[in-house]
Amino acid sequence: MTVGASERIQALYWIETAFPPEDAAAVMAGEQSSGTFLHVPGETPELLERAAARVESIELLEPVAQPSLPGASIPKGLKGAPVYRRATVRVSWPLANPGPSLPNLYATVAGNLFELQQFSGLRLLDVTLPEAFLDVYQGPQFGVEGTRRLSGVEAGPLVGTIIKPSVGLSPEATAENAAQLAEGGIDFIKDDELQADGPNCPFDQRVDAVMRVLNDHAARTGKKPMFAFNATGDIDDMLRHHDAVLRAGGTCIMVSLNSTGLPALARLRRHSQLPIHAHRNGWGILSRHPALGLSYVAYQKFWRLAGADHMHVNGLQNKFCESDDSVIASARECRIPMFRRPGRGCVVMPVFASGQWAGQAPETFRRFGSTDLIYACGGGIMAHPGGVAAGVRAIRQAWDAAVAGRSLEGAAREHGELKQALEKFGK
Amino acid sequence: MTVGASERIQALYWIETAFPPEDAAAVMAGEQSSGTFLHVPGETPELLERAAARVESIELLEPVAQPSLPGASIPKGLKGAPVYRRATVRVSWPLANPGPSLPNLYATVAGNLFELQQFSGLRLLDVTLPEAFLDVYQGPQFGVEGTRRLSGVEAGPLVGTIIKPSVGLSPEATAENAAQLAEGGIDFIKDDELQADGPNCPFDQRVDAVMRVLNDHAARTGKKPMFAFNATGDIDDMLRHHDAVLRAGGTCIMVSLNSTGLPALARLRRHSQLPIHAHRNGWGILSRHPALGLSYVAYQKFWRLAGADHMHVNGLQNKFCESDDSVIASARECRIPMFRRPGRGCVVMPVFASGQWAGQAPETFRRFGSTDLIYACGGGIMAHPGGVAAGVRAIRQAWDAAVAGRSLEGAAREHGELKQALEKFGK
Repeated sequence: MTVGASERIQALYWIETAFPPEDAAAVMAGEQSSGTFLHVPGETPELLERAAARVESIELLEPVAQPSLPGASIPKGLKGAPVYRRATVRVSWPLANPGPSLPNLYATVAGNLFELQQFSGLRLLDVTLPEAFLDVYQGPQFGVEGTRRLSGVEAGPLVGTIIKPSVGLSPEATAENAAQLAEGGIDFIKDDELQADGPNCPFDQRVDAVMRVLNDHAARTGKKPMFAFNATGDIDDMLRHHDAVLRAGGTCIMVSLNSTGLPALARLRRHSQLPIHAHRNGWGILSRHPALGLSYVAYQKFWRLAGADHMHVNGLQNKFCESDDSVIASARECRIPMFRRPGRGCVVMPVFASGQWAGQAPETFRRFGSTDLIYACGGGIMAHPGGVAAGVRAIRQAWDAAVAGRSLEGAAREHGELKQALEKFGK
Repeated sequence: MTVGASERIQALYWIETAFPPEDAAAVMAGEQSSGTFLHVPGETPELLERAAARVESIELLEPVAQPSLPGASIPKGLKGAPVYRRATVRVSWPLANPGPSLPNLYATVAGNLFELQQFSGLRLLDVTLPEAFLDVYQGPQFGVEGTRRLSGVEAGPLVGTIIKPSVGLSPEATAENAAQLAEGGIDFIKDDELQADGPNCPFDQRVDAVMRVLNDHAARTGKKPMFAFNATGDIDDMLRHHDAVLRAGGTCIMVSLNSTGLPALARLRRHSQLPIHAHRNGWGILSRHPALGLSYVAYQKFWRLAGADHMHVNGLQNKFCESDDSVIASARECRIPMFRRPGRGCVVMPVFASGQWAGQAPETFRRFGSTDLIYACGGGIMAHPGGVAAGVRAIRQAWDAAVAGRSLEGAAREHGELKQALEKFGK
């Protein structure tokens, strides 16, 4: 593989440090490229020129008096109380260090940095990659257009739901559930991330039972809801799961990203003929503390490039602790091309989920600015007083109102299902 | 696969919450098994009996007045300032929920928990697994005994080092470095985690160049240092890298765990005929905040079962912010069998690294209580005033003194290399 000598990987970090920020940034760049804690003979000027990471810019933010994370050190001989300076820092690496390899990119930009004593806070905010990565990784195969094509939803969000209870249903009970949802007019159904291939609900039996009813439904009505079967497992299992879904006429597989890892996702993508619905469970570990980990902007780029088609972004007013601003920023990012190469922007479909019902539709549309999304409601559909079909209709009525710029209360005067939803869930 | 109905997965958590701990624990168990935020029809008593997670015990700790993590909620209608109660909580799941699958286990015990609003702190401390996992996963292939056999080090720690500069050396320069280290009597050499298969130092060329000198050295002296080639990459690359090392007569491969993921590591293990040296770079993301993420005790169990032979544990007085207590606890854990089945305890060899030199040997031995370890020094060997051979000898002299219960200063009176090391690095 030929890599242009001038091509560089860029990464943006938020840092907090009791040391001069330029010194701390130099430690980051050194630790993550050719630096050593003592000078060694091989560290020649030519090698440094070729391999050293570069601090491209530092922008100071407001300092604080208390460290965000424990375990940080302060400069030796410091007089008085330390000041913890905050800054955003842009660092670049020669592409030739890791090469266009996602696992090695991760070790470079998100490796041995977060434990450095110089930092009382360090978070990866963004990465910008040379196009050489596109020659190695395939990115999403279906994205928004392919998902609309396979699900037959030409406009508006895909109205989705999650099989509940999360885990424990038999294949037959899952299929009954799916049949009811299909009758109710659902566009998209997903397994829970806890339901993969356990012995109480083996994957193959679930696929057979569910696709029997969905294929039957499609034959009768012309509409086949997209069902994201949780294919998470070891590599050969995931490939086999994919094949089972494809063979049964299914149109989507789901994987838990943090359980799967980048190499396995890229391998699955290379094999796949179906959209890959990417679940980010465990994301809280990587993101819950604002001074540590990764922003979703950075995180989702790795997985989009590796081949995810749908990326979970949480939802407005969710049951987790993520703010609405953060949810919207994440969702918008999914639509921003990662690369300029035509057709290779790796744009994906965001999935809004967690405590969603009709109520969040107007605000979601107003802030996200598009209906290119999957809107996944659990209880919001399943527990609708009028049943599942009424639950689905209420969601659509809410989104139609949102797109038309009408209030939900106004639309509810014409739509009984939406009215019921507002009465039950809107308190 | 048959799974006994009574077999359960156990997980221990540290939690902090403004809610009654028993309520918060019930939320954890519900969210991670059959719970929904509204009751749904399929949630029958039989299903709950079969699939529900169970809170086994709660042990209260000292409460605090301030939340450790932002974003947590407090009980509605609470009068007065909230109290954040801390506790350790043991939760169990039926093995039949995820089945004996590491990726799905991870989604179960370390999935959508860390973002729950009820918690201002949540950390996975430990997991205990049924033996059914041993029928699916192979665990370490070489461990301590295999590593000693392949490296020819019958007693004492494997004295190791890391190729420096971390990244940027050509294959030939790496081989020169390795030749010098072999002449110096080193037992173990590893690539840096930043040096994998970049175009400036392609993996295959590095293996060929390095193994040419190490094989030659072995032919002359009978001793072949173990070289852990950084095989991290996409799956087919890792398998191919393994084959290249094996073909060239090499005795170890290294992978960055967090870049690799559990399925890819298990796949590599299934293919491998070499010890797998597991690097935990990026570990700080998962562990730096004490109220979030995973303890190393929990983390390392996943990777040991998946097939790691050597696990990095940092070192005493390291350049990162981990405490000595934490380092020792991690290293000890590597020696504790995960399972009782004979020969299947998944015991691995801990790797002490980061700022290590002769100086930490006595305290490391005193607290770890064994020499079954790799002791990896960078500058501590490479920058020794007497050169590499003197650097290696100084490390051995320090460990001999440690095992004999002598002080380093005492031993340094007889050993010039140790004396030089103490003078240079001991300030």
